[in-house]
Amino acid sequence: MNTQAKLSLLGAGPGDPELISLKGIKALQTADVILYDALVNEQLLDWAPAHCLRIFVGKRAGRHEKQQEEINRMIVGYAQAKGHVVRLKGGDPFVFGRGAEERDFAKAYGIKVEYIPGISSSIAVPGLADIPLTQRGMSESFTVVTGTLRNGEISPDLKHAASGQSTLVILMGLKKLDKIVEIVGKSRGGSEGIALIQQGSTSGQRVLVGNLGNIVSLQHSAQIQSPVLIIIGSVVRNRHFEQQIWEDFSHFIYAQV
Amino acid sequence: MNTQAKLSLLGAGPGDPELISLKGIKALQTADVILYDALVNEQLLDWAPAHCLRIFVGKRAGRHEKQQEEINRMIVGYAQAKGHVVRLKGGDPFVFGRGAEERDFAKAYGIKVEYIPGISSSIAVPGLADIPLTQRGMSESFTVVTGTLRNGEISPDLKHAASGQSTLVILMGLKKLDKIVEIVGKSRGGSEGIALIQQGSTSGQRVLVGNLGNIVSLQHSAQIQSPVLIIIGSVVRNRHFEQQIWEDFSHFIYAQV
Repeated sequence: MNTQAKLSLLGAGPGDPELISLKGIKALQTADVILYDALVNEQLLDWAPAHCLRIFVGKRAGRHEKQQEEINRMIVGYAQAKGHVVRLKGGDPFVFGRGAEERDFAKAYGIKVEYIPGISSSIAVPGLADIPLTQRGMSESFTVVTGTLRNGEISPDLKHAASGQSTLVILMGLKKLDKIVEIVGKSRGGSEGIALIQQGSTSGQRVLVGNLGNIVSLQHSAQIQSPVLIIIGSVVRNRHFEQQIWEDFSHFIYAQV
Repeated sequence: MNTQAKLSLLGAGPGDPELISLKGIKALQTADVILYDALVNEQLLDWAPAHCLRIFVGKRAGRHEKQQEEINRMIVGYAQAKGHVVRLKGGDPFVFGRGAEERDFAKAYGIKVEYIPGISSSIAVPGLADIPLTQRGMSESFTVVTGTLRNGEISPDLKHAASGQSTLVILMGLKKLDKIVEIVGKSRGGSEGIALIQQGSTSGQRVLVGNLGNIVSLQHSAQIQSPVLIIIGSVVRNRHFEQQIWEDFSHFIYAQV
């Protein structure tokens, strides 16, 4: 076994290649193999040395167990054969990234694991669309939930969170938009604000703003595309956002909230 | 008015000075004035040019309204007088950082505002203590809540989230530990896992792990100090964490979960 065998679980951030950490850049600069996901900006691969293998292991619409097992085996195999493997994931590796499973698998083979956090899309993408997740006197908490479970169902956690006041952030939920709107609308009513943000932080960013009562029909016209982050709560409706929207955001699509 | 007047709301990350983004470094390199908080690593100031004013505006234990108003005025005054003001905040500016208020104030004076997200302590600090916030089959969501409201009370959002399954992350909650344990314990019982993490990501990191039934007495002995992040949920109890704890973490304090 390679005595330098090491796995860096590295968060690439939300998409903008400048939103990676300095520590992340240093990991890429010493990588022997990079295994990267679909949501990672490929410009980041340029930080790696010439000899480094760059291997795409992504698939946008979820991942089958078999694929995940293969990635786990690749991590261990390449670490043993080549040394420093960087597992480059969109956002942060521990936010629905299956980073914990990859960590556990590698450690079970005696491979040293380092976690290098990334800027999570769950926080940065709303902020970059001028929707802060927390705002004094308006939002005292936020809940981040995955829109798609293993069994294809919506998490009971979403239903529970909907019945409170927390700002909701839903990742990978676009295909379930109708169902999400139905579940949250039951507790919060049709006037609650909602935004869909496509490819946040990149030049492909588009933002659709509406409320739970009209977002499905707005999306029917707007056709916001995956990857999408959904945010629901009072912070979407804040006045400042409405005032500034035409001035600052060329890619915004706006509808009355 | 200075035509270059600009505010960068910049997230410094959780403490490790290498956990700032490349975009953040570039902002610091063009700063004329940096207004920085208590939780910011001062090594980051070294990125700024020689002429840049570096002004400490932090205060650990909350902030009075008057102080916040003064910071708002400093942002506008310095931007108008000097040009590029960087407001350097621990973690991410929009996670309980009052970034939204500073943005609104500056924009009202016609100052251009840029948000540069940071790595939020709410996600990275648990991960760096080997507690991923999400884990497949164990945690489908996480809720981040502030431990201290303006009125000194605990947010109703905590009580609500406690009655669900979401992993809980509580910022600025150490002084209210007794009360938090009481509130969450009513829903989740004494065996629910909890960890207190002091100065996560830095050399001062200490982690106290226990359950809702014993954490108050453990803390009585351990005396974990602010700034502290509290994490509650099944992910704290995961087996891998228990197995690895002695091997990897010199600053860990461990108690039976």
